[in-house]
Amino acid sequence: MEGNEKKMTFLTDMEIASQSEMLPIKDVAHALDLHEDDYDLYGKYKAKLNAFELEKMQDRPDGKLILVTAITPTPAGEGKTTTSVGLSDGLSKIGKKPMLALREPSLGPVFGMKGGAAGGGYAQVVPMEDINLHFTGDFHAISAANNLLAALLDNHIHHGNALQIDSRRITWKRVVDMNDRQLRHIVSGLHGKVNGVPREDGFDITVASEIMAILCLANGIVDLKEKIRQIIVGYNYQGEPVTAGDLKAEGALTALLKEAIHPNLVQTLEHTPALIHGGPFANIAHGCNSVLATKMALKYADYTVTEAGFGADLGAEKFIDIKCRLADIKPDAVVLVATIRALKMHGGVGKAELEPENVAAVLAGLPNLEKHLANMQEVFGLPVVVAINKFPTDTAAELKAVEEACQERGVEVVLSEVWEKGGDGAIALAEKVVELAERPNTFRFAYELEDSIEEKLTKIVQKVYGGAQVTLTPGARRELLELERLGFAQYPICMAKTQYSLSDNPTLIGAPKDFTVTIRQLKVSAGAGFIVALTGDIMTMPGLPKSPAAERIDVDAQGVVSGLF
Amino acid sequence: MEGNEKKMTFLTDMEIASQSEMLPIKDVAHALDLHEDDYDLYGKYKAKLNAFELEKMQDRPDGKLILVTAITPTPAGEGKTTTSVGLSDGLSKIGKKPMLALREPSLGPVFGMKGGAAGGGYAQVVPMEDINLHFTGDFHAISAANNLLAALLDNHIHHGNALQIDSRRITWKRVVDMNDRQLRHIVSGLHGKVNGVPREDGFDITVASEIMAILCLANGIVDLKEKIRQIIVGYNYQGEPVTAGDLKAEGALTALLKEAIHPNLVQTLEHTPALIHGGPFANIAHGCNSVLATKMALKYADYTVTEAGFGADLGAEKFIDIKCRLADIKPDAVVLVATIRALKMHGGVGKAELEPENVAAVLAGLPNLEKHLANMQEVFGLPVVVAINKFPTDTAAELKAVEEACQERGVEVVLSEVWEKGGDGAIALAEKVVELAERPNTFRFAYELEDSIEEKLTKIVQKVYGGAQVTLTPGARRELLELERLGFAQYPICMAKTQYSLSDNPTLIGAPKDFTVTIRQLKVSAGAGFIVALTGDIMTMPGLPKSPAAERIDVDAQGVVSGLF
Repeated sequence: MEGNEKKMTFLTDMEIASQSEMLPIKDVAHALDLHEDDYDLYGKYKAKLNAFELEKMQDRPDGKLILVTAITPTPAGEGKTTTSVGLSDGLSKIGKKPMLALREPSLGPVFGMKGGAAGGGYAQVVPMEDINLHFTGDFHAISAANNLLAALLDNHIHHGNALQIDSRRITWKRVVDMNDRQLRHIVSGLHGKVNGVPREDGFDITVASEIMAILCLANGIVDLKEKIRQIIVGYNYQGEPVTAGDLKAEGALTALLKEAIHPNLVQTLEHTPALIHGGPFANIAHGCNSVLATKMALKYADYTVTEAGFGADLGAEKFIDIKCRLADIKPDAVVLVATIRALKMHGGVGKAELEPENVAAVLAGLPNLEKHLANMQEVFGLPVVVAINKFPTDTAAELKAVEEACQERGVEVVLSEVWEKGGDGAIALAEKVVELAERPNTFRFAYELEDSIEEKLTKIVQKVYGGAQVTLTPGARRELLELERLGFAQYPICMAKTQYSLSDNPTLIGAPKDFTVTIRQLKVSAGAGFIVALTGDIMTMPGLPKSPAAERIDVDAQGVVSGLF
Repeated sequence: MEGNEKKMTFLTDMEIASQSEMLPIKDVAHALDLHEDDYDLYGKYKAKLNAFELEKMQDRPDGKLILVTAITPTPAGEGKTTTSVGLSDGLSKIGKKPMLALREPSLGPVFGMKGGAAGGGYAQVVPMEDINLHFTGDFHAISAANNLLAALLDNHIHHGNALQIDSRRITWKRVVDMNDRQLRHIVSGLHGKVNGVPREDGFDITVASEIMAILCLANGIVDLKEKIRQIIVGYNYQGEPVTAGDLKAEGALTALLKEAIHPNLVQTLEHTPALIHGGPFANIAHGCNSVLATKMALKYADYTVTEAGFGADLGAEKFIDIKCRLADIKPDAVVLVATIRALKMHGGVGKAELEPENVAAVLAGLPNLEKHLANMQEVFGLPVVVAINKFPTDTAAELKAVEEACQERGVEVVLSEVWEKGGDGAIALAEKVVELAERPNTFRFAYELEDSIEEKLTKIVQKVYGGAQVTLTPGARRELLELERLGFAQYPICMAKTQYSLSDNPTLIGAPKDFTVTIRQLKVSAGAGFIVALTGDIMTMPGLPKSPAAERIDVDAQGVVSGLF
């Protein structure tokens, strides 16, 4: 792991991870002044921190909260997680006491496309095989809780349907933590009277479960149970909601989640402590790690580095308007990650032509970066720094173009070389983040809870996306009235929109203007506590590619896994 | 936990368990001379023992293996697990070094009917909530592996079906560890070209998965992968088997199982070490805990107490003819568990009339016990003791009737009072077991692998069940010829038969004679390595009752679960 050695060979993420010498996680915990009773070991390199400790720490001051977000994603990649990991290591290098607060990866992508969510190069969290395979079992617990609720629901209908549930209006789906398109649309309950009641049905991937969003927004086990109780599973023949509470399910579901609620402690390759906990979808859910993990990190560390899913229009907006609002926390500084390659794609260059120098393309792509910067500064009132995740093909002229554009906004651009150098590649970034976090800010939300649903939607579209207006389909209009009637008008909005554009049209790259965002469906996640606004077909169950990564994953006679990356 | 206190109050299993003072599991491990590197902690009271250590212990002599089995089950209950736990504690009390080797419970029954599989009263394994909820995640890993194979299969068909898989002849089902009748029969892949290929489909409960049987029969990780490779997932249009190996799935599935393969260490209320690992169905699978756990226990302990599912006709037969044969182990003594209440039911008395003394009913029910004893002695050549799991309503005259009948066979009857007294209630039983295990025995199988499929079936039915003959439906006859053609004739047989009768008719209690067993279906579990002979409709996905136990399970603000028992 010496700097000189690193530069001489290109190793896979898995090779780098397996060559690293992890500390026993109990040593990482002890460095946080944790006592043995404050955590449970899951093997030698993973632990669950006792979330009940949070209450005892209420008097401790919070550290600074640093949000890592990104420009609108392109197929060129940005490296948000890698930058987050490297930044935390960089903060360690300059003598700070940082902690990461990241999301857990889903099993689905691991077996589909090559890739995981543990960072990359010399900026990784480890043990990466464990984090990418079952980890501490949180997602399985969430699947079990989700599917118990589904089983209780169908069982209720089977045994006489006293609640008069309309089987055509069941909104609760089963889940599996797997990319399995075959289960998207099914008919269940077939084969006669003893085998349930026939109905249209379907599966989502576990990370799309409302239980996942709830676990990530719960302030503790009592709040978790209360949120579960409020889940709407469907509607009865009178059109009134039927809840998990009506099915007396909240106790059993909470029992299934009693371990999953505790944040997981691991480490980076450079031994920076990392809480990896929860992983809700960033479209139909809010896309952030758990509130409990973030709050605990704020108590243990002087700098908590966290990230939000997709680009800043979706991720940062929901991080702020949903997570920060509901958890009563606020970020102190924002890191906006970009790559020269991605800016070129926003400038209209195809993926095959990214290598040659092309300053014109970078300039053409900069409005996307500038819009996200403007959002952070003007909409949310936060200090921001741009981190360019460096690639070998980046040229000085291209970087200069970015720097000049950012300078006009008073924003500094810092090169991040964490993939190649780990924390050493983020020292300048870490120093800048420390400086920004001391600045006074004018943190605010994009909308207020008291705004009407339509006002909230309009503010998000106009202020954050830069669109002209929002329009609702007739169906969405009916749903809006229904949500108001049912008393959900004051809930925050969770936008489910393509991540590939600031608009709702994935082909509009860069910084489109004068567009209209069409809301096709409005539905409430009454347990999680937000209204999901769907702007198109949102995929809640991915499929596997023709040649899935699973075919190349293997285990040897010593139990060592290969092919994960 | 003093004897006098126990007798004065009736506590629930959960109250008893929560009042017990568990040892840190690392202390239990250290008492077994295990080094820190030989196990991984999962919290403070669970650990996974490193199965790779088994190879290093090949030179150590094996301890004695004690099989706990039972008479044909009745609704009155027998208490096989409770007796196993108590016996292991009793062996501790008389100065031996025992270890339990038991199955893991499924989540399904926990939320359905009241009950788990962690023993009862003062003869329990702990931590019982953890053992009954996710434990160390083994079943979730098995579900994930099972479902990845299903996703890969349907994905292969979706992307062109190069293997020409006949979607009408897919034998691999998805699983969920939940009682969910709604999923028994479904149609999947609906809603157009991008959402899979429509076909009839269905889910089993996880414990019915062939992956579960494979995990329990594997000798190590290499064997596990090889067995997975051989799984038949369906047939192509030419009628030839398609395997998991054809789908290149064995590496990824094994990666998902790389932790699940290691046996789980917990303890009894009296701190006897217990390996709880694997839990295959006792009908379509062999119903025993894992071979690795049993083999490790034989190395660590001088007495390993294990049990087999259902009554001795199914459980002990498959334990011997499948598990012992494939693992090359053999039991040294058998404990046959019975209750006076169950014997009365076999004598024709209904569940509501079990309390009053009824020696005639006991006598009428004894042929069931006697047939199982004869099987142990004459078919399998093993020494056996009868353990009467004592109930307060048992009378001296009833017990005497049992003793006299057993005396004729040279079999001793010992009272087991472990539910009330823990290990103190099994001292006589432990002493008897130690004596029996020293006796020379003439251990043998019920059939030889070289016998034809029909000869094997006939030997099981005639020798073990006491029936007259076996008959195959025309469909089963065709399947038999097909299995012979495919080269599976030398596999052992896994009988899937009602557990409520020695025959294939659940209403024939006691010891029926002159019956014919009808085989309706023969199918191979090519990975697990046995032919399943189905004698009727075998339920592989249970349903929930009208008022499921889930409704009464709760968690308080401290995270303490209630309502599990």
